Amino acid sequence: MTRHDDLAHTLPLDIGQIVAELRDARTDWRLAQGRSLEPRGRDLPSREVLRGLMVDLHGLLFPMRLGPPDLRQDAEDFYIGSTLDRVLHTLGEQLQLELQHSARHAHLSPREAQSRAAHIVRAFAASLPATRRILDTDVLAAYHGDPAAHSVDEVLLCYPGVHAIINHRLAHTLYSLGATLLARLIAELSHATTGIDIHPGATIGASFFIDHGTGVVIGETAVIGQRVRIYQAVTLGAKRFPTDETGQLKKGAPRHPVIEDDVVIYAGATVLGRITIGAGATLGGNVWVTHNVPAGAQLALSHSQDAAATSPEPI
Amino acid sequence: MTRHDDLAHTLPLDIGQIVAELRDARTDWRLAQGRSLEPRGRDLPSREVLRGLMVDLHGLLFPMRLGPPDLRQDAEDFYIGSTLDRVLHTLGEQLQLELQHSARHAHLSPREAQSRAAHIVRAFAASLPATRRILDTDVLAAYHGDPAAHSVDEVLLCYPGVHAIINHRLAHTLYSLGATLLARLIAELSHATTGIDIHPGATIGASFFIDHGTGVVIGETAVIGQRVRIYQAVTLGAKRFPTDETGQLKKGAPRHPVIEDDVVIYAGATVLGRITIGAGATLGGNVWVTHNVPAGAQLALSHSQDAAATSPEPI
Amino acid sequence: MTRHDDLAHTLPLDIGQIVAELRDARTDWRLAQGRSLEPRGRDLPSREVLRGLMVDLHGLLFPMRLGPPDLRQDAEDFYIGSTLDRVLHTLGEQLQLELQHSARHAHLSPREAQSRAAHIVRAFAASLPATRRILDTDVLAAYHGDPAAHSVDEVLLCYPGVHAIINHRLAHTLYSLGATLLARLIAELSHATTGIDIHPGATIGASFFIDHGTGVVIGETAVIGQRVRIYQAVTLGAKRFPTDETGQLKKGAPRHPVIEDDVVIYAGATVLGRITIGAGATLGGNVWVTHNVPAGAQLALSHSQDAAATSPEPI
Amino acid sequence: MTRHDDLAHTLPLDIGQIVAELRDARTDWRLAQGRSLEPRGRDLPSREVLRGLMVDLHGLLFPMRLGPPDLRQDAEDFYIGSTLDRVLHTLGEQLQLELQHSARHAHLSPREAQSRAAHIVRAFAASLPATRRILDTDVLAAYHGDPAAHSVDEVLLCYPGVHAIINHRLAHTLYSLGATLLARLIAELSHATTGIDIHPGATIGASFFIDHGTGVVIGETAVIGQRVRIYQAVTLGAKRFPTDETGQLKKGAPRHPVIEDDVVIYAGATVLGRITIGAGATLGGNVWVTHNVPAGAQLALSHSQDAAATSPEPI
Amino acid sequence: MTRHDDLAHTLPLDIGQIVAELRDARTDWRLAQGRSLEPRGRDLPSREVLRGLMVDLHGLLFPMRLGPPDLRQDAEDFYIGSTLDRVLHTLGEQLQLELQHSARHAHLSPREAQSRAAHIVRAFAASLPATRRILDTDVLAAYHGDPAAHSVDEVLLCYPGVHAIINHRLAHTLYSLGATLLARLIAELSHATTGIDIHPGATIGASFFIDHGTGVVIGETAVIGQRVRIYQAVTLGAKRFPTDETGQLKKGAPRHPVIEDDVVIYAGATVLGRITIGAGATLGGNVWVTHNVPAGAQLALSHSQDAAATSPEPI
Amino acid sequence: MTRHDDLAHTLPLDIGQIVAELRDARTDWRLAQGRSLEPRGRDLPSREVLRGLMVDLHGLLFPMRLGPPDLRQDAEDFYIGSTLDRVLHTLGEQLQLELQHSARHAHLSPREAQSRAAHIVRAFAASLPATRRILDTDVLAAYHGDPAAHSVDEVLLCYPGVHAIINHRLAHTLYSLGATLLARLIAELSHATTGIDIHPGATIGASFFIDHGTGVVIGETAVIGQRVRIYQAVTLGAKRFPTDETGQLKKGAPRHPVIEDDVVIYAGATVLGRITIGAGATLGGNVWVTHNVPAGAQLALSHSQDAAATSPEPI
Repeated sequence: MTRHDDLAHTLPLDIGQIVAELRDARTDWRLAQGRSLEPRGRDLPSREVLRGLMVDLHGLLFPMRLGPPDLRQDAEDFYIGSTLDRVLHTLGEQLQLELQHSARHAHLSPREAQSRAAHIVRAFAASLPATRRILDTDVLAAYHGDPAAHSVDEVLLCYPGVHAIINHRLAHTLYSLGATLLARLIAELSHATTGIDIHPGATIGASFFIDHGTGVVIGETAVIGQRVRIYQAVTLGAKRFPTDETGQLKKGAPRHPVIEDDVVIYAGATVLGRITIGAGATLGGNVWVTHNVPAGAQLALSHSQDAAATSPEPI
Repeated sequence: MTRHDDLAHTLPLDIGQIVAELRDARTDWRLAQGRSLEPRGRDLPSREVLRGLMVDLHGLLFPMRLGPPDLRQDAEDFYIGSTLDRVLHTLGEQLQLELQHSARHAHLSPREAQSRAAHIVRAFAASLPATRRILDTDVLAAYHGDPAAHSVDEVLLCYPGVHAIINHRLAHTLYSLGATLLARLIAELSHATTGIDIHPGATIGASFFIDHGTGVVIGETAVIGQRVRIYQAVTLGAKRFPTDETGQLKKGAPRHPVIEDDVVIYAGATVLGRITIGAGATLGGNVWVTHNVPAGAQLALSHSQDAAATSPEPI
Repeated sequence: MTRHDDLAHTLPLDIGQIVAELRDARTDWRLAQGRSLEPRGRDLPSREVLRGLMVDLHGLLFPMRLGPPDLRQDAEDFYIGSTLDRVLHTLGEQLQLELQHSARHAHLSPREAQSRAAHIVRAFAASLPATRRILDTDVLAAYHGDPAAHSVDEVLLCYPGVHAIINHRLAHTLYSLGATLLARLIAELSHATTGIDIHPGATIGASFFIDHGTGVVIGETAVIGQRVRIYQAVTLGAKRFPTDETGQLKKGAPRHPVIEDDVVIYAGATVLGRITIGAGATLGGNVWVTHNVPAGAQLALSHSQDAAATSPEPI
Repeated sequence: MTRHDDLAHTLPLDIGQIVAELRDARTDWRLAQGRSLEPRGRDLPSREVLRGLMVDLHGLLFPMRLGPPDLRQDAEDFYIGSTLDRVLHTLGEQLQLELQHSARHAHLSPREAQSRAAHIVRAFAASLPATRRILDTDVLAAYHGDPAAHSVDEVLLCYPGVHAIINHRLAHTLYSLGATLLARLIAELSHATTGIDIHPGATIGASFFIDHGTGVVIGETAVIGQRVRIYQAVTLGAKRFPTDETGQLKKGAPRHPVIEDDVVIYAGATVLGRITIGAGATLGGNVWVTHNVPAGAQLALSHSQDAAATSPEPI
Repeated sequence: MTRHDDLAHTLPLDIGQIVAELRDARTDWRLAQGRSLEPRGRDLPSREVLRGLMVDLHGLLFPMRLGPPDLRQDAEDFYIGSTLDRVLHTLGEQLQLELQHSARHAHLSPREAQSRAAHIVRAFAASLPATRRILDTDVLAAYHGDPAAHSVDEVLLCYPGVHAIINHRLAHTLYSLGATLLARLIAELSHATTGIDIHPGATIGASFFIDHGTGVVIGETAVIGQRVRIYQAVTLGAKRFPTDETGQLKKGAPRHPVIEDDVVIYAGATVLGRITIGAGATLGGNVWVTHNVPAGAQLALSHSQDAAATSPEPI
Repeated sequence: MTRHDDLAHTLPLDIGQIVAELRDARTDWRLAQGRSLEPRGRDLPSREVLRGLMVDLHGLLFPMRLGPPDLRQDAEDFYIGSTLDRVLHTLGEQLQLELQHSARHAHLSPREAQSRAAHIVRAFAASLPATRRILDTDVLAAYHGDPAAHSVDEVLLCYPGVHAIINHRLAHTLYSLGATLLARLIAELSHATTGIDIHPGATIGASFFIDHGTGVVIGETAVIGQRVRIYQAVTLGAKRFPTDETGQLKKGAPRHPVIEDDVVIYAGATVLGRITIGAGATLGGNVWVTHNVPAGAQLALSHSQDAAATSPEPI
């Protein structure tokens, strides 16, 4: 008697019973959510499809570095055109799924959803060359910002901060065009592989660099200038959620910091609320900032704190 | 001459020699561990198999959202029954591997291991409908807890905190049934993809929500009430490991915090030891808490600290 | 008319135009980087290839735990020899790609690059048995350092800190032999899956253990003694980058801490600059250390800070 | 210098030139075929998709024999329902591709194509239980017809003739419903793996068995009764194509043999034209038959021929 | 509205109804076959598993020709040992499935089945070196027998007749050891890829060569001497199935030809019944032979037949 | 005790012993073949690589029919350029493997092999547009030659005879350029999937059509004119191999038939030797032809034979 049979013997599971109970749970949920129980197909974009899409987009933006290993430079344009065609039509399909899904609430006709999807795809495609140019400034910023970097190629291949900004710039374009769910999915795929969590709504200037990166969180309404440098575990968050006169959360209201040009924020710093960090300011590691910081200022943890830490005491 | 041949030519590696030295290293280790050197097959559960198992479990709990993209609603029950059958038998096989492995120490006969595996599989299966129902409260908590969330569907698709609690509730069931190694493996697979590290022993109430999540650590004996909300980089840890009168570590002794209902803990807060955070309390970002906190209290970093931070000084 | 056709109809994208604009962006970049525009093949190592290489290396170092599930102990040596052969030749190919790439700057002839690659492969192969032996000390350190660990096997299967040190010891060997780009790629692959970011240049003694691990950052010139234990979100970083008399960054100059034997560093501690933490010292959670710490010292956040935190105040 | 670079150096291919010439060839072809040059997507069913469909169909018809290896009998219905749902919707998509393609010529509106596809899918689904029942007679015929067969299970697993009749009965149903291109594709996939070429239009009664099978060809208008047995390399073909009064080929006109019940046709026999082989007749190996054969007749190659063959002579 | 939804709308399939009808069909079949309806797992060997097994076996017999492309000669033994271990244990598992299946009829206890499986695996393993040596004679025979062959390597890579004899010799060993179902499955996998159908029971001497091969059929009790050469579409079949006095088919009774050493049989020849083709005889193309042929004879189609063919007449 | 362990227990295989015996067998073979025993890497082209190459080649010749399912017509050129680049460089690598292998015998230097490979790749690339144009005539011939064909698209998707001629024209180009081993491998891959065995050396004119196809064999020196149509199981073979005055086989000497324009050859016909079938002749099914046939002749099996067949007699 095999192990398999043995197990079956001692295991008279009533699968049908569990299936029925799971069905009840789903029905209760759907009724509670005010949903029709009428059967339909799945109508949400797919994580797996978007994962493949991002691989293609990285490849077509940086063909000789992030594209297929056997690509030769004199076939770059063929590769890009062919990949672009596939990318745009996959994107169009996923967009239609998103728009149809949200159309239930927005009373959008299928035809309108389709036309909107086509518009977004066109605009996204047209934005790619400019995206590549601004990403080049980010790559240079990483190369110059880390003394350990040996070449721009190493930066493109290895740095999670560079992958995070590539993903963000693409997600942000989609977000700006109204594809908020796709944008969010891309941001979370990026979060899962880089540990860097940038909301696709965040506005980020050229020459941006995140070093190490694990634990960085950048909120939806954050605005970041040019040549900003950020280290791991930095939070650009909301202090509290703004509410309107009736106490309802005001969605999309500015609630995250404005970081002006040339700011550096060291690891573990927390910057909360719609405050402004002035141009050229430096925020030291682990600082906690909830008020405006003037241009050029240099903030650090107070001496007392550091001193306290160095006076040994039992823990 | 090809590159391959060239390399071979200049590379007269004695593979046999390295193989022998690696064998010596393994033999020394096995002897040091008091193991028999007698040949046997691999007897541990497989990360890869568990990874596939979790994909199936997510799918059968939320078929139209996390199941296969082409699933239609009127075939849900067929999909669930078919997936459940596969899941339970895979789980049974992995469980037997775990139990046989630990049986070496526990003097468990193969037959006893098998019967225990069958019991655990049955109990796990029976728990799934209740798990789905409590996860529905978590999904709603995420939707209501984040003003940026547009729909419960977006929450299920995108939020790492939601994936982490799905994984945890499944792992915790297995842990409670005695499958500690499988539970631990699932927890680590979840940690690797979400950045959220919840020990499968932790007890967590309904309507739980972790936002952003990277760097969250929740210890084995933590107890969390209902409607608790937690942000990234929060630690619910042990202050020190309790020892018995002989100085031995007391395994499993309560050493992590108790978080009562409706507590909110902001990013970076550290809560250590078997203390209680009273119902409705709020812990501000980056606070360091090692004593009980009364119900309803609102803790934040002291003004002095924030002030210190805003007085610029060189770093 | 299918959805696909509909979309095409409303979507008269000029792919050729976008391809041309992307080409212009690449050309501008290549000219700005002083590169020849002459076509060539891709000449960088591949993330995907290295990912497979690491799976093989984990398997050949710990065949019955991290190797293929169906491996039997009496075929271990055959498996190892066969895997080793594949590993070394794949490594040789990737090394040649790295060396040819850097050879452009270093005026290395193809023949010299090849001979250097062969030398590195040989040395790397010869180091594997010693690597296995030191990793055994790390496994034991993890087992003894975490009261929740039930067996050395669980430690090998589950602990991200153990996987991170396996990856690091392999990457560090390559780094020491001059394969800095491959070493860096391995380190980033490890970072992406464990959340632990160890620069391959860091020197780490035996019996090293990182628990939980997410957010740990260890810098290039850090030196860590034996029996050191580190928790999540610990940073061993640089305070500032040293510059020479002309203000240029001095690459490779010692700028990260020296951690002596038997030190324990709790979660969230930040240790910056070329300082020394004396043997047997303990750094408490979240401390911020920028000066030397004497041997045996125990540092913790000051009482005042903890007190401040426990006096409730509005946030 | 690597092999790759060397090759590139000596290989200044003008890919653009070849691409242009291939475009010219396609344009000439499309103009000659009277096709619009206006861009559109691919609109034909996919061999690969159909290959997967057939695997699913074999599995749902014979779940414990041709279904997934880990399927358990008490989950059969779940497996079948889930597979059936996937099969029918994949089939629906492929059908729409076929119907849209042929609609160009048939002036079928997209809506009509869709409605026709839905009708065919429904009818195909409804036919599956009857298909299973008639296939059971074929399996028994194979088991009884070959003295070497040990069990009906061996017959289902191993016999190419059985796989060919499973494929044919499914293809024939589609053919009868008007899905001639899908039917043809299935027939050719079957031909490629079994070496047996049955046109999907052929009508075949119950308890049909083909032994060995390589080289068997059965034409579109062949009609085969019950309990017929056929060996390898048998042809049931057309003698000549019937033409109408203007000399045009009459498509679909009966031109292949009628084989009545209980006929046996041995290897290599050729039966041509709209003739009838009477019930119970036996056609010996390699016979060449172009006229009706009465019921019960036994045909064989003439003695003279066999004799000739046994008188040795030089070749 | 997407195509998918449209289709669903017009397609209210009652999947449950079809599932029920298919269940009825299976139940009827199982009752008719005298089978228990009690649920159990699948208990037959798997085509897919055997397919992988054959790839491994080809590789370990001819490592530098049919093994993995990146294998180097100095790692051959490691590769073979590692592959052999996997092969034998996979074979053992499949054998147990076969033996348990047939044990139902043979009243074999699980323990006996297991012990028999172990015996067969051991004997099969021990036979592999001799199998390699006899296959070397087949490779040489192919090389010398076809003037178009340029090297023994080409023969091993390209010739379907060589792949067929490799498969046959392995299948025949299993058949002789009693693993008739596995042997049959291997033979059919070979038939499907080469078009050559050799029953695993056939006995074939050294230096055997089949050229082209499509359509060759060799029966279960055929006995073939050394240095025999056969062309495409040759049948070595049974004239009629021998029956015992009660009219029952006598299974396994000799009913296929004996081909002595050094015989050549040209394309399309049919040799039927337990006759003997004497040593050194040559059978011309398309001859039909049902009587013994003396040693050294040369048979061909009679002149009259050829002449008939060359006198033009209408068809 | 699991099945796995049980088996191991009763199965103390000495793998090392079998590995050693297999090594002895290889050593004997290598010595007998006059080969150096000095270790080296595998140096033969790979079936798997060529299989992928053929998929790419079919796709770039017929992008909207045999290319990727999601390809859109306005991206055809990008797809073709990108695929062509990959194809040519893969072909170049495989060619170098072939040339190096044969160079051992031909005393070709590595540099010469490389230069010859580059030449062949260039010439092959340049031939593709003409290959597409002649294949268009074959597609039309198939469409017009089979009354069952509904469209040229069906012909391209389904007909094995069309796939066989696509493969042959590509293989023949390589053969003519001297890449005989690659050509042979392609021919055998085609044989395995279509059952049609055309030697890559055969010369075939435009508008060629093979219907059904299983069992067709066309020899190396066959010459076929334009508009020739052939049915299944037709052999265009050699009568005997020509030898020179010393009795050695004369390789490459013309020994297969010349088929002039507009000939039709029905199923099972055998045409042997360097004879000529005159333009417009028709060879009936199963005829056996070893002498020249005049233009316009119509050959068929003699009446007597057909008559003999219809007079029933026992078999």
